[in-house]
Amino acid sequence: MDFKTKLSNIVHENNSLLCVGLDIDIDRMPSFLLKTKKEPLFEFNKKIIDATKDLVCAYKLNMAFYEVFGKKGYDLLEKTVRYTPKKIVIILDGKRNDIGNTAKKYAKMFYDKLKADAVTINPYLGFDGVKPFLEYKDKCGFILCRTSNSSAVDLQDFKDSNGRFLYEHVAYKIKEWNKIGYCGAVVGATYPTELRKIRRILGDDIPLLIPGVGKQGGDVEKTVKYGVNKKGVNAIINSSRGIIYAGEDENFAKFSRRAAEFLKEEINKYR
Amino acid sequence: MDFKTKLSNIVHENNSLLCVGLDIDIDRMPSFLLKTKKEPLFEFNKKIIDATKDLVCAYKLNMAFYEVFGKKGYDLLEKTVRYTPKKIVIILDGKRNDIGNTAKKYAKMFYDKLKADAVTINPYLGFDGVKPFLEYKDKCGFILCRTSNSSAVDLQDFKDSNGRFLYEHVAYKIKEWNKIGYCGAVVGATYPTELRKIRRILGDDIPLLIPGVGKQGGDVEKTVKYGVNKKGVNAIINSSRGIIYAGEDENFAKFSRRAAEFLKEEINKYR
Repeated sequence: MDFKTKLSNIVHENNSLLCVGLDIDIDRMPSFLLKTKKEPLFEFNKKIIDATKDLVCAYKLNMAFYEVFGKKGYDLLEKTVRYTPKKIVIILDGKRNDIGNTAKKYAKMFYDKLKADAVTINPYLGFDGVKPFLEYKDKCGFILCRTSNSSAVDLQDFKDSNGRFLYEHVAYKIKEWNKIGYCGAVVGATYPTELRKIRRILGDDIPLLIPGVGKQGGDVEKTVKYGVNKKGVNAIINSSRGIIYAGEDENFAKFSRRAAEFLKEEINKYR
Repeated sequence: MDFKTKLSNIVHENNSLLCVGLDIDIDRMPSFLLKTKKEPLFEFNKKIIDATKDLVCAYKLNMAFYEVFGKKGYDLLEKTVRYTPKKIVIILDGKRNDIGNTAKKYAKMFYDKLKADAVTINPYLGFDGVKPFLEYKDKCGFILCRTSNSSAVDLQDFKDSNGRFLYEHVAYKIKEWNKIGYCGAVVGATYPTELRKIRRILGDDIPLLIPGVGKQGGDVEKTVKYGVNKKGVNAIINSSRGIIYAGEDENFAKFSRRAAEFLKEEINKYR
């Protein structure tokens, strides 16, 4: 099934634009898990997935949080992807970028080996670094456009003589590249003005992956209002820490479910 | 030993600015290796290192070529780093980038776990994505400035109202960030004009990592002339495929040695 259909189906079935970021961090795990379980990190992911799988459209796994464990992290990543119900979208967030023949290896790793439905890609190298990902026609490459961090301004607000910012230039590039293969754009919820501009440039068909609500402080109402398309879809709104670390004791997954439910409903209120 | 001293020592000892890129590719391995050896990829790297270790200042390992093998690739990476003589600089080329708390995990992986001397970093997210790498004071973060590929122009030639290109803007940022922690810049040999401009902006103290000679077509004379500093150092000139796949049969390492020797001498001719 292609990405578009898969996303549309699960958004409809779970009535949700919420994506939960499984950014596991050993320092923030409930301590009882570390003491009692053989595979505490996988156990943690399993419990979060079990508790939220009817509330989300996607899970996003940021590669850094897995790679830091070396080989074990790779195992954990594979197991977590395998454990996730097939109907839910899996986004592997690696922000990779390289020249053509090298980017091809990354695309192979994410799509053939790790079975991602979508990945994140850094656009600094231009089209030939993005192209190998777009050759996987049933997948979606989410290209960084406006990131959620405060230093985003350092490069992304670089402005040409017509007053166009780099992030807008990237949005136009994404629109162009989308003719070759299915693209999405990553836009931080922490920048609502930019989010609105980018949605206008991209039109309705290009999905947005929007991190930055929750702990990073992005406003949910504006995120939804400016991020979704005219039909109230095609936006994947991610929260990581605010959901997965909502609780600390044996009942942590219940707290995560509650936090996910709350955010899902808040999002739907404004759709 | 800090990066600066290590680089300076080995450049002096081997009288070389050459970096060999260990971009292993199973499709391009000498076929006899695949048939006869238990660990053909590691065997390949060992042979290349043995044949070139007195000719280089650094080895660069592009992460994509290892990650594509999953857990095995991680093993291979660790083993190769361990096998490399301690005095030679190891650059892990992952072009990573993420928001602060995530970039921290990447820095930990590359420096604490994989024992790199230097890494490559994509600047699109701005300073807070770079900072965690700069906190490792004895290391060096090579920041993508002008990449060697033809699509580099897509974003990097975006120009402000003063006629300054994005890659120049990034060079100025690198100069600024270098006050916080040791930075280098990645500049493709395929863009000599840009290379000259960037060296002028950065001054003498910031090292350049220069890919793109050899198979990618960068001119060696211009690369050296515009890339080195006033003392003829602080440039690390990388060739991957042109050296490691110079031969195909049992004697492949000899061909690699010959190719490395030739490029090293050609570089020195213009220093």
